[in-house]
Amino acid sequence: MTQQAQGKQTASLLASPEADFPRWYQDVVTQAELADNGPVRGTMVIRPYGWAIWENIQAGIDARIKRAGASNAYFPLLIPQSYLAREAEHVEGFSPELAVVTHAGGKDLDEPLIIRPTSETIIGEYMAKWVQSYRDLPLLLNQWVNVLRWELRPRIFLRTTEFLWQEGHTAHATEADAAQYARRIHLDVYRDFLERDLALPVLIGAKTDRERFAGATNTLTCEAMMGDGKALQIATSHELGQNFATAFGVTYLGQDGQRSHCWTTSWGSSTRIVGGLIMGHGDAAGLRVPPRIAPVQAVVVPVREDDDLLAEAEQISARLADHQIRSSVDKKGGSFGRRITDLEVKGIPVRVEIGPRDLAAGQATLVRRDSREKLTVPLDGIAAAVADLLGQIQQAMFDSASERLATRTHDVRTVPEAAEAAKTGFARLPWRTVGAEGEQFLAQDALTVRCLQLPDGTLPDRADPADELMCVIARAY
Amino acid sequence: MTQQAQGKQTASLLASPEADFPRWYQDVVTQAELADNGPVRGTMVIRPYGWAIWENIQAGIDARIKRAGASNAYFPLLIPQSYLAREAEHVEGFSPELAVVTHAGGKDLDEPLIIRPTSETIIGEYMAKWVQSYRDLPLLLNQWVNVLRWELRPRIFLRTTEFLWQEGHTAHATEADAAQYARRIHLDVYRDFLERDLALPVLIGAKTDRERFAGATNTLTCEAMMGDGKALQIATSHELGQNFATAFGVTYLGQDGQRSHCWTTSWGSSTRIVGGLIMGHGDAAGLRVPPRIAPVQAVVVPVREDDDLLAEAEQISARLADHQIRSSVDKKGGSFGRRITDLEVKGIPVRVEIGPRDLAAGQATLVRRDSREKLTVPLDGIAAAVADLLGQIQQAMFDSASERLATRTHDVRTVPEAAEAAKTGFARLPWRTVGAEGEQFLAQDALTVRCLQLPDGTLPDRADPADELMCVIARAY
Repeated sequence: MTQQAQGKQTASLLASPEADFPRWYQDVVTQAELADNGPVRGTMVIRPYGWAIWENIQAGIDARIKRAGASNAYFPLLIPQSYLAREAEHVEGFSPELAVVTHAGGKDLDEPLIIRPTSETIIGEYMAKWVQSYRDLPLLLNQWVNVLRWELRPRIFLRTTEFLWQEGHTAHATEADAAQYARRIHLDVYRDFLERDLALPVLIGAKTDRERFAGATNTLTCEAMMGDGKALQIATSHELGQNFATAFGVTYLGQDGQRSHCWTTSWGSSTRIVGGLIMGHGDAAGLRVPPRIAPVQAVVVPVREDDDLLAEAEQISARLADHQIRSSVDKKGGSFGRRITDLEVKGIPVRVEIGPRDLAAGQATLVRRDSREKLTVPLDGIAAAVADLLGQIQQAMFDSASERLATRTHDVRTVPEAAEAAKTGFARLPWRTVGAEGEQFLAQDALTVRCLQLPDGTLPDRADPADELMCVIARAY
Repeated sequence: MTQQAQGKQTASLLASPEADFPRWYQDVVTQAELADNGPVRGTMVIRPYGWAIWENIQAGIDARIKRAGASNAYFPLLIPQSYLAREAEHVEGFSPELAVVTHAGGKDLDEPLIIRPTSETIIGEYMAKWVQSYRDLPLLLNQWVNVLRWELRPRIFLRTTEFLWQEGHTAHATEADAAQYARRIHLDVYRDFLERDLALPVLIGAKTDRERFAGATNTLTCEAMMGDGKALQIATSHELGQNFATAFGVTYLGQDGQRSHCWTTSWGSSTRIVGGLIMGHGDAAGLRVPPRIAPVQAVVVPVREDDDLLAEAEQISARLADHQIRSSVDKKGGSFGRRITDLEVKGIPVRVEIGPRDLAAGQATLVRRDSREKLTVPLDGIAAAVADLLGQIQQAMFDSASERLATRTHDVRTVPEAAEAAKTGFARLPWRTVGAEGEQFLAQDALTVRCLQLPDGTLPDRADPADELMCVIARAY
């Protein structure tokens, strides 16, 4: 089957991303068997292929969190309603989204219980027990859990009533230490993971007052550009000042014998990343998964059902596995074209195609999912060739996403110019030109300030004068 | 400090397990920093050390589940109340333990939502969508999630309102295939993990009608003996017949063109395993963690604060890490005796103690946590010595638990004899001697039939006549 004919078959499975990006997104989620809608509106069922991707995302983030010195723990799902009320901005921000348990064990409860929308409050309560002196600081915790926020306009992976995430929570002796740790997580965990493993370049910066997390004094964000030019907030790190420490009595005895409130941070990333993967890398044929995240990095495809071909395919797959390449054999029946279409929808980085003539010649054809380039290689040394190709694909995907980000980010001078540029991508201009009034004006067109950054694109310090900051404006998910 | 003096210090931290086993258990949970009680009665906070143990337990079970061919997925926390009602025995069994969300997003809900107590119902709904023909079978799913069952008499790790577990759910074309898969999981995942990694021998068998899972046609169990001679049900695998398949319409089109209901199974193991680890291996000095599960397998302990000793300790730890031994350096200040007591409470399998004379002689002292035996080894080749010792400890812990199980299991002939023997351990006698009446009689003394097995201790088949089965009777957690 020719490349063109394959293209046709693909087109029948998926909406065109140019014509209808939201519909294409939903089609990819379904056809790649990533997830289904749950029975309760806004919830989702993550199917085995989607979950395998999420497991690899988790592994990449978790290893970096541990390297940054934080330890995993687990705090309860149910939070007494009274806890939420202790931090005024926090309860105001989350109240409309809460799910409430009023009845349990056959009885009405005396105090209603909240299903965690995030865990600053319950973790604050335990930090207060565990932190006594400066020797107990910093206290660096993380947990991988499900949370619930009732969503009025849910969209699978991107904005779901129940989602899965990691939430880190730390307590520090000083404001500077807290700020430094939040930056470290933001750069060494989130940006590093997103750029190196997910192959998705991100803009880093601070949120404006309007966009800040409820209860935070500063919110750092990683913003990625999706295939349609919109922004996706993909991970955030918050400095919480002494707000939660004051509300929950998290204090420590300093070396000087004085008791002070701690400075806390929190930081999170979620199953939303899977949405970012789809929209950041997908194309007309479906998903494209970067090799470092791919559950199957190389799939060996016999061109037709044949015992000799299948035996050879199994041998190739075993050799790839010996070289730490996650591989499998496509054993499905049916037409070759249809099987290729399925493997492309799933975004498997490399196909190793093998036919009778290949077998006779002692070779196989490698097909890159990202560029669809083909390459004939001898079976001898095929593992090294695939490993090399996986490295090239990882880099090429990052480069291609970086080019899109660069091409579709426009430096502009006025708010109306920003609004125009944000129709197809990101607009960048001095924050002093926009300000809180400009931000409110843009909001009428569903445009938001995604982040504030220094002119060289680095994270601002809270000490940097607002006058010197640039801002990035875009439509966003 | 002498061994005796250390013993004294230990005694002051923990209740004696002989004098007050439940109090000793709670003391170990607290002193080893495994967990705290949550703010809502019956919930728990799992602290970093407890969580690190749970992560290793998860890794061991998860790898075996994948080897058995099942894939991880994720199903929503919230289940419509109507789903539960579809399987009569199931809803009857779980109704008293449910937590109910009646209010969400600022409104009362039209239909109350249940927080999953287990997921047969919601997974049944999706199996019905995904299974069309015999080619889709078997469908082998698993998920690692939190579940809620309102507990009247909670005990941390053992019986908590919220707990974490894996629950596997599979659908098969035939009853025989379902039965075979449930056995495979039971033996190759649960028993293999518990005996090899957790070093805890288990009795395997089937539950009686009285003890079976609500909605199952057959329940297999792994039962371990705790330090006080009581039984802990530590993992269960259920054949669900066609009960849930009928309730949720899980059908398939066979090769013969006939549509039939599937046969399903479910199987689970939970954070209760941490309780089993504590009570199955702990001693008067605290926890003893088998090397394969231990977050820290070897801790290097400088006998006093000294820069040279610390530098050497760091080097030793690095060499152990190079040999894939999970190691750390004890850098806490304070008395040597107090530090040893802390490390013993946490159950770290091997201590590498190093003092100035050791340093001069180019050697270190290895101390086994399980037997407290000491061994002087040259620093040259210390990694091999520690690796070897870890293997010995793993085996010795299994042997010691096996000996307890053998010594405290008594073959008896009558129900009163069984009641007497079960005061200190397990009693074993023909099931026909007990029967449903004997079972009810024993229940008055809180004694239960833990499992039915063949005379050689293997899993019974449902075809085996009840007359030929043996039963094991014990007090249980």
